[in-house]
Amino acid sequence: MDEKEKAQNTPIDTSWIRALSLNLIPPSLGDNTADADRLIKAAGLQLDSDSVSIPFARLAGLPKTLRNSGYRTSAVFFKDEGRWQLIDLFPPETDGGLYVAAVDLGSSTVVVRLLDLASGETRDEISFHNPQIRLGDDILTRIHYAGEPGGLAELQGLLIDRLNEALRAMVELQGVEPRAIVGMTAAGNTAMTHFFLGLDPYWICREPYIPVVNAPSMVAASEPGIGINAQAPVLVFPNVGSYFGGDLIAGILASGMMDQDEVSFLVDVGTNAEVVVGNRDWLMACAGAAGPALEGGVANMGMMAGPGVIDRVRIDPESDRFRINTIDDQPPMGICGSGLIDLTAALFLKGMIDLRGKFVPERCGERLTDMDGIPHFLVVTAEASGTGQALTLSQPDIDGLIRSKAAMYTILNTIANTVNISLNEIKRFYVAGTFGSYIDPQSAITIGMIPDLPLDRYVSLGNTSLIGAAAALVSAEAKKDIHCIRDRITYLELNVNQEFMNLFSAAKFIPHTDRSLFPSVKRQVSKENIKNENIE
Amino acid sequence: MDEKEKAQNTPIDTSWIRALSLNLIPPSLGDNTADADRLIKAAGLQLDSDSVSIPFARLAGLPKTLRNSGYRTSAVFFKDEGRWQLIDLFPPETDGGLYVAAVDLGSSTVVVRLLDLASGETRDEISFHNPQIRLGDDILTRIHYAGEPGGLAELQGLLIDRLNEALRAMVELQGVEPRAIVGMTAAGNTAMTHFFLGLDPYWICREPYIPVVNAPSMVAASEPGIGINAQAPVLVFPNVGSYFGGDLIAGILASGMMDQDEVSFLVDVGTNAEVVVGNRDWLMACAGAAGPALEGGVANMGMMAGPGVIDRVRIDPESDRFRINTIDDQPPMGICGSGLIDLTAALFLKGMIDLRGKFVPERCGERLTDMDGIPHFLVVTAEASGTGQALTLSQPDIDGLIRSKAAMYTILNTIANTVNISLNEIKRFYVAGTFGSYIDPQSAITIGMIPDLPLDRYVSLGNTSLIGAAAALVSAEAKKDIHCIRDRITYLELNVNQEFMNLFSAAKFIPHTDRSLFPSVKRQVSKENIKNENIE
Repeated sequence: MDEKEKAQNTPIDTSWIRALSLNLIPPSLGDNTADADRLIKAAGLQLDSDSVSIPFARLAGLPKTLRNSGYRTSAVFFKDEGRWQLIDLFPPETDGGLYVAAVDLGSSTVVVRLLDLASGETRDEISFHNPQIRLGDDILTRIHYAGEPGGLAELQGLLIDRLNEALRAMVELQGVEPRAIVGMTAAGNTAMTHFFLGLDPYWICREPYIPVVNAPSMVAASEPGIGINAQAPVLVFPNVGSYFGGDLIAGILASGMMDQDEVSFLVDVGTNAEVVVGNRDWLMACAGAAGPALEGGVANMGMMAGPGVIDRVRIDPESDRFRINTIDDQPPMGICGSGLIDLTAALFLKGMIDLRGKFVPERCGERLTDMDGIPHFLVVTAEASGTGQALTLSQPDIDGLIRSKAAMYTILNTIANTVNISLNEIKRFYVAGTFGSYIDPQSAITIGMIPDLPLDRYVSLGNTSLIGAAAALVSAEAKKDIHCIRDRITYLELNVNQEFMNLFSAAKFIPHTDRSLFPSVKRQVSKENIKNENIE
Repeated sequence: MDEKEKAQNTPIDTSWIRALSLNLIPPSLGDNTADADRLIKAAGLQLDSDSVSIPFARLAGLPKTLRNSGYRTSAVFFKDEGRWQLIDLFPPETDGGLYVAAVDLGSSTVVVRLLDLASGETRDEISFHNPQIRLGDDILTRIHYAGEPGGLAELQGLLIDRLNEALRAMVELQGVEPRAIVGMTAAGNTAMTHFFLGLDPYWICREPYIPVVNAPSMVAASEPGIGINAQAPVLVFPNVGSYFGGDLIAGILASGMMDQDEVSFLVDVGTNAEVVVGNRDWLMACAGAAGPALEGGVANMGMMAGPGVIDRVRIDPESDRFRINTIDDQPPMGICGSGLIDLTAALFLKGMIDLRGKFVPERCGERLTDMDGIPHFLVVTAEASGTGQALTLSQPDIDGLIRSKAAMYTILNTIANTVNISLNEIKRFYVAGTFGSYIDPQSAITIGMIPDLPLDRYVSLGNTSLIGAAAALVSAEAKKDIHCIRDRITYLELNVNQEFMNLFSAAKFIPHTDRSLFPSVKRQVSKENIKNENIE
């Protein structure tokens, strides 16, 4: 069941944000309860709760609103720690026309999904490049920038302003006011969460790596300046530590692994490889630098995904020709992580690189050239390229990828050893993140980045940060799960000790020094070798 | 036990506002809990609660404060509906130097009491004329003024600004910042509560007399603009209805009648006579216009209490001379309610007014003059007066007082009939309010304003609004009692029907048409008559 189905199947009364259709008995001499208390009483009956309150900011306008509508109103409330609080009053029978927004606070890309409050259905989705990029490509640069005078406010301002712009565009399209967005969830890594809330991330990247807050209380939208209903609750996903953010909590929630009997793995691959293993009884998490090669930022021809970027590579088994797929079928401009993994796997299977990832000149033939003493492999000729320049893959590009994939595998290996599970016995392996959804698991197995499991055990979840955020928005159960997940997680601090380095060294081969761990790769290599021999 | 003793005997850990001395274990690689969560955890242990939170406004500053003090701090928390919330952090071992403020939001006079948070002892008290008076002497005029454009904001602004000025003066004297005031309670009538919170009182004085709110949630001091610690909780006493305000809830709390087995009465006399009767099982309340005569605003020579105002009058039994006491022993300028009651009682006992309250010329002698056809009784000669003018009591002044005292007695009579208690069987009769504390019960009995009880059953409590507010500030038990009181009260709507009018007519005599209700007055009159005969 994907998250959309889940939301649609969630009856509205399990939500923690609810629009109540209230038909109050107007006051009389025999019943002179105050307006606020009258509203609270009626709402309490519908909500089956004796803990209902009205925030100060909503008191002053109450009498006029109630009187103008003859004491009939759509009153929207939210629940936090067992207490219901009024968000706002709307004209009677405002059943549709109320929304909630889920936000994936990505450090590169921010995605906002607008959902209908009543049905939980998705109404719109907007993604935009995180405008903070102009102040720092990577999160570490931004953290340092936040330490400059006014830096934190600028970073927060850029993010919130752009987010507000997106929200405005979305409500305009629905023909309502921003006030009609009555709730929000936001999931991001720990630093992004700090920027979002205007908290100084200074100590996040300094030993012993302490966030300002792990589990922030819910805030009113107006507090961090979100331009939706001022009293809308904003639930910011908690983090487990500086290197394990709310985005991954949202990922766990999206995977549902915390509700299953059998043990599964969840991997979110980015600059950091974030790994969770566990089931309904326990969860263990671990994060480590997997290297930027996977994000496409470092390779000579590497790029972030976008039009013209190579995301799929095959070498035709018959003709030996490269079959390249680019995003939007534009002339090739560069390569992204998934393309790089495909390419490396193909080169390996063709024997063009050896098990250390080094080019094999006799196999590469003319495609291999030397530029300033560095071997380069021609992927796209200048004529076929969208840049007018040949696209080449250098030896250091492959070396970088191998370090990244080795780190990834070593992290998986380490956490599996810790919980005493064999990687090849994993029943379900969730891959999270936009990047994860592009990776071809077979290619990733071929280079030894992920365990050699039957392909059907790999489940690509897509943007789990957003899916988790949306789930928590429409379901009180999912919202509750967030804190269950956080409380249940044991965080495994990666010790880069001799044992780790040994595992890492063994993983720096394609697919691995221990070939028995990758039987499927062994079979493919044999097949290719037979073919190669035929060709030669 | 007066309220001061009560506060002193309250151990600090029963308070709902607490300063915790926290010595946090600084973060390390082995314990990388975030700063906020670290503080919450440590506070939770001391508070024995797993519901501790930090408001958004206090998150950003947290890391620096904790680091600058080596993770030692005095953290002040308050409890609301079972949840503890951080107010602020202070330097370690700030044991003294933290305060809370109780406010009596009187429509004429506002009183602020500053208490030491740690000991609950009173440190200072300031009272000032309610600056709203310049926009309307009486509360009704102000309610109408609030309906003018900008009127409500002006009324609120005047009150809050003056209050902030008083608070600033108080903290300056203690040598601390306004931030050191970490909590506040405020009790006032329903309209004053509305002005304080910036809520429109428009519907309070219009049928069916509906306040905006009966039981406001606690607000942060910054919300209505109180210039103390921005996150200090401000507890505004709830009202029972438009004519039964939080000041009277505070009064009940101050009396302790809700904890007693036997039934007592509590009377707060002002423009309205507010009456409560009950015990630990039930409370019934009733309010009605007792007439402004008692507040001294109407009588020809009437004034509010102040220097030179006559507050006590005796007629020397031997010499027949008037023995007049003025406030601060200044030359007499006018008379306040208590003086007027004394004077009227004395005139009645001397036979100078009859049982209808009409002057008896043959008894008054030269003191009685006619001005524009209205009889005036000379109280102070022009030579002895502080104004240079003779101070006289007119027939209409007495008529007004008699209407007021009749209303008072009728209200008492009505509520006593409703609960089926004989007025003369009341075991304890609490008199609340500054005015109440000046009244001589014997004089009030003599004119038939209050029941003819043995004098020791009358207990004058002073400013119960302030005492109740202070009690709720330093004791969680008292704070809880507020809502118990409010929930337990039955409000008796005074029906000015034929029965009421009959009772009222009977009470318009001195002391009453049914003299058997006032045996002590009968005895005094007999005594006086004997004396008078001797003199004559």
